[in-house]
Amino acid sequence: MKNPIITLTTDFGTRDNYAASMKAVMLNINPDVNIVDITHEIRRHDIMGACFIIANTYHYFANWTIHVVIVDPTVGSERRPLIASINGHHFIAPDNGVLSGLFQDPEDISVFAIDAEHYYLRPLSSTFHGRDIFAPIAAWLSKGIEIENFGEMIDDYVDLKLPAPIASEDGKLEGEVIHIDSFGNLITNVTRDRFEQMLEEAPEHTFQLEIGSLVLSELKRFYAECESGKPSLLFGSTSQLELSVKRKSASEMLGLKKGQKLTLTFS
Amino acid sequence: MKNPIITLTTDFGTRDNYAASMKAVMLNINPDVNIVDITHEIRRHDIMGACFIIANTYHYFANWTIHVVIVDPTVGSERRPLIASINGHHFIAPDNGVLSGLFQDPEDISVFAIDAEHYYLRPLSSTFHGRDIFAPIAAWLSKGIEIENFGEMIDDYVDLKLPAPIASEDGKLEGEVIHIDSFGNLITNVTRDRFEQMLEEAPEHTFQLEIGSLVLSELKRFYAECESGKPSLLFGSTSQLELSVKRKSASEMLGLKKGQKLTLTFS
Amino acid sequence: MKNPIITLTTDFGTRDNYAASMKAVMLNINPDVNIVDITHEIRRHDIMGACFIIANTYHYFANWTIHVVIVDPTVGSERRPLIASINGHHFIAPDNGVLSGLFQDPEDISVFAIDAEHYYLRPLSSTFHGRDIFAPIAAWLSKGIEIENFGEMIDDYVDLKLPAPIASEDGKLEGEVIHIDSFGNLITNVTRDRFEQMLEEAPEHTFQLEIGSLVLSELKRFYAECESGKPSLLFGSTSQLELSVKRKSASEMLGLKKGQKLTLTFS
Repeated sequence: MKNPIITLTTDFGTRDNYAASMKAVMLNINPDVNIVDITHEIRRHDIMGACFIIANTYHYFANWTIHVVIVDPTVGSERRPLIASINGHHFIAPDNGVLSGLFQDPEDISVFAIDAEHYYLRPLSSTFHGRDIFAPIAAWLSKGIEIENFGEMIDDYVDLKLPAPIASEDGKLEGEVIHIDSFGNLITNVTRDRFEQMLEEAPEHTFQLEIGSLVLSELKRFYAECESGKPSLLFGSTSQLELSVKRKSASEMLGLKKGQKLTLTFS
Repeated sequence: MKNPIITLTTDFGTRDNYAASMKAVMLNINPDVNIVDITHEIRRHDIMGACFIIANTYHYFANWTIHVVIVDPTVGSERRPLIASINGHHFIAPDNGVLSGLFQDPEDISVFAIDAEHYYLRPLSSTFHGRDIFAPIAAWLSKGIEIENFGEMIDDYVDLKLPAPIASEDGKLEGEVIHIDSFGNLITNVTRDRFEQMLEEAPEHTFQLEIGSLVLSELKRFYAECESGKPSLLFGSTSQLELSVKRKSASEMLGLKKGQKLTLTFS
Repeated sequence: MKNPIITLTTDFGTRDNYAASMKAVMLNINPDVNIVDITHEIRRHDIMGACFIIANTYHYFANWTIHVVIVDPTVGSERRPLIASINGHHFIAPDNGVLSGLFQDPEDISVFAIDAEHYYLRPLSSTFHGRDIFAPIAAWLSKGIEIENFGEMIDDYVDLKLPAPIASEDGKLEGEVIHIDSFGNLITNVTRDRFEQMLEEAPEHTFQLEIGSLVLSELKRFYAECESGKPSLLFGSTSQLELSVKRKSASEMLGLKKGQKLTLTFS
């Protein structure tokens, strides 16, 4: 591979040397690799947070990019290290469900449990597999080692059920807030495609959203169109329905959190 | 261009995937590009903050560097995306005044309103032009596409008046605090050249600075020369007069903010 | 050098343009250089904090890597800029003890006081030697200029005494907390080698650790093995004894700080 890219998504923060040690190990094995930080600020141990970020980012990178995703509260235990080929991209992560977002409807998928210990860093620590296992495996993969050489194919990997919106027969859609970005926008699991299809099929092509004590029935196109200080609905950069307050944190202002349920009624 | 550099200055933070998505899009178009983060921690929607940072940083980069500057509270509205060639560097930004620091005394300048939609990412979101417009335009520019191909030349771009120090005939100079760095140093709009010229022309070659309730008449050369816990004056890394408290935040200690007026009296 | 790497360890933060200006200067001199951030979030003026980070990180990088380490409270004063070759790596830093961790037991070491002013940026500021001295020296070194060309060899560089654990004849070892990572783990100066040797030599092969009001006598292998909410002992990623609380900050929970003494009794 020319110009191989390895991306990093972790909860290590940037204050310590954890991310830098991984980069050192990778550059030592493959000096040609281009390392791109997605983020190191996943909330500590927030597997679902990392899951959201990588699922909404990887497809902007070229095919064959290698994505290392580490939120690893059970490092050192029996949980397996995984290497997966999904939709033409590669993913390296602990087997704890952090890749679940990628396991939905993949066109092609093969998952391997890494056990090729001769690629590991020595001595192998029991507390930092990011540096000692995931980094060297990513670097060797970027040098062209075939994925089959890192372990056996498996199909019993951890696949967390991600909350999907549920349609009822009376034209309602029950969704929930699945992510809060650093602007405080509340991102839901209702996609633009799903929303537009239900709106089109509804007799009056109108909708009403209920979330907490809030009722909204208008869609904005962009942030500047929203009224200052008032909660607004729009489709954000992930094409998912998003609740936003202009120049404020919607999450703080409305006191709503991840997991908050919402009901869309189309009529 | 060999080794083309694209810099990023945004208010996106590093917790979300916003900056990383832009990098993905750029590397996808031009895998040879070297992306350098200036900062992603401009205060949310602080156009003047980004303006200060880019104007004080770009000239350390080689000519022909491409600088992407995104603080974009009106994304999605009618505000135009700009591409500008200024003093041999390139800038890509929304037309909201964020480049105003570059529009003062440029040796050469040409500004274009981007409208070459065939370079945009598809589908085009209305909330994230960083990823969908600015990133691909920067990447295509780095591949050698001529700047004229991205849009029409304009001269009615937004040019915010930056506060300039005002000299009165009695040897006074009225300035103000234009930036507070993360150390809490208060950076003013009084340049070393201006200060030294007025000091030289003054009969006694002395000065007095009044800011808030504070009066200072001595200049330090560097931070270690300052007295602990006392406010000191020196010329900082941007060659602008700066109010500093050794090992403390001058801004917090003195309760002074951006926009604070000051008077220099030379005698 | 092909693919020369320059690492950065500073207390500049990432909100200002300080680190980016250094990168600009370096890329301007050597466009082929690969700049890797170790961290810019050393606590302001925390020389010992930077000392810990660089000493525990540099050896993961390839030989001949150039490490720039800047925590520089006395910038502009008489303190000298250093360039050092240690164990096959290069270090560029102010002469204030920030490299002390590297000065212990090096196999080979040579230290030079930089005074080759023709390599400095002009005009030379007295407040930002990171950009004006350290960055250009690093870049010129990466282009193959011999280290002897940057200054005279010296042996009177500042070498801070790092706290070493002290063994007493009754089988006790007195150590201390030397670092707190961003997870809140308390990292001590007791190495795994030292610990295991004393444990093996003890008659019953048991140990007891006293720190603050806490007494512990069991060693865990990894974080997931620890009991929730209870302080645990293990060897962390630096192979040093570490006090950790599962999914919590041990430092906050126990109210312990850097410098906290501890006693290990082997029996």
